[in-house]
Amino acid sequence: MTKHPTRTVVLCSGGLDSTTCLALAKDRGDEVFALSFDYGQRHRVELDAAQRIVKHFNIRQHCITSITLPNPKTNALTDCNLEVPAHQPNTEAIPITYVPGRNTLFLAYALSFAESIQAQRIMIGCSHVDYSGYPDCRPDYIQAFEQVARLAVPEGIQGQPIHIEAPLMHLSKSDTIALGHSLGVDYSMTISCYRATSQNPACGTCDSCQLRLKGFEAFYSAQSN
Amino acid sequence: MTKHPTRTVVLCSGGLDSTTCLALAKDRGDEVFALSFDYGQRHRVELDAAQRIVKHFNIRQHCITSITLPNPKTNALTDCNLEVPAHQPNTEAIPITYVPGRNTLFLAYALSFAESIQAQRIMIGCSHVDYSGYPDCRPDYIQAFEQVARLAVPEGIQGQPIHIEAPLMHLSKSDTIALGHSLGVDYSMTISCYRATSQNPACGTCDSCQLRLKGFEAFYSAQSN
Repeated sequence: MTKHPTRTVVLCSGGLDSTTCLALAKDRGDEVFALSFDYGQRHRVELDAAQRIVKHFNIRQHCITSITLPNPKTNALTDCNLEVPAHQPNTEAIPITYVPGRNTLFLAYALSFAESIQAQRIMIGCSHVDYSGYPDCRPDYIQAFEQVARLAVPEGIQGQPIHIEAPLMHLSKSDTIALGHSLGVDYSMTISCYRATSQNPACGTCDSCQLRLKGFEAFYSAQSN
Repeated sequence: MTKHPTRTVVLCSGGLDSTTCLALAKDRGDEVFALSFDYGQRHRVELDAAQRIVKHFNIRQHCITSITLPNPKTNALTDCNLEVPAHQPNTEAIPITYVPGRNTLFLAYALSFAESIQAQRIMIGCSHVDYSGYPDCRPDYIQAFEQVARLAVPEGIQGQPIHIEAPLMHLSKSDTIALGHSLGVDYSMTISCYRATSQNPACGTCDSCQLRLKGFEAFYSAQSN
């Protein structure tokens, strides 16, 4: 009897974390469906990166879905009148780049997609180690959404509840890069910057750029020791 | 000190249940924000009803959001090549009108909206008594989503977690109609039919029409006794 591969919906922003997830799912032989979102983000150029990456990994299907936020004028990622600030280390406040309900929307779409194609898993690249301080990136949040998926799809997929995987949850950025390198990921394909444009894919100073830069510094420093 | 009214996001399909919710929230003095969805439903004419109803209730803001389902070809509400079946009493199977992830998507948008306007409550008109057998209409599902909201918005709204209210959850359709009548709801404004068009707002035979018709029968029968 031929064993069918596990189907996995991977949330794919075009950034470092989700590309590592894509590589991970492909490496273990999953049948991968990539899901990306145009939610009016100022760094929409990340979707070009997502398309390149998905093509590179020879992904079976890439769905790019538009999201119209009920109220985009709340944060610097979807309101271009607000400025993306430079990274402020050691602050605990939720930053102005936080998009209300973003991961819940992303996971809700992923759940709808997974159920409709009978995918057993949803993979999201969030981490609570080196992250921007968004509340919807923490382990208990992911577990709560998994419970929603369990109850929304009570018969599960092939008898098993849909599993929400966040394989980078407990990894530092440098650990994630190490994992990606071990899987042969070419991070030059990825875009992380909140201010990215097609002319300038990385500002170097926003939260996302700073976390990425420090991750690479730590990774190369560990390698040279 | 003036007490500010509670802000509530009410999911508003234009049907009987959500209109009862709208009346309930208005009656208790909430500041109501209505949220409707164009998700490619064949009975999109329900949105015309939603607009009339929202105007009638003098709602502060009505947001109609478009949802592009990742895979609309799975169910008879968003794939016009599939037929909406006539009501089959006493079946336990999930019907072909079930849209994968629909309530999770609706609640995710409501959560994003609520957080962005600092609304303390989200109200959804689902019930597990007289319903079409959709899994995402049951009490444990709503509780699980409330936990997602609690963790996604850890500081809450004015210090309180966002509450997901499903005030019709344990009411029969006839109880809901009685509640609406007590609040002065004119149900002739509402559209429930899965096959509704502007020419014909009710087929009378689909699940939704049958539940509605039986609800009115029971309501009038109880009144005449």
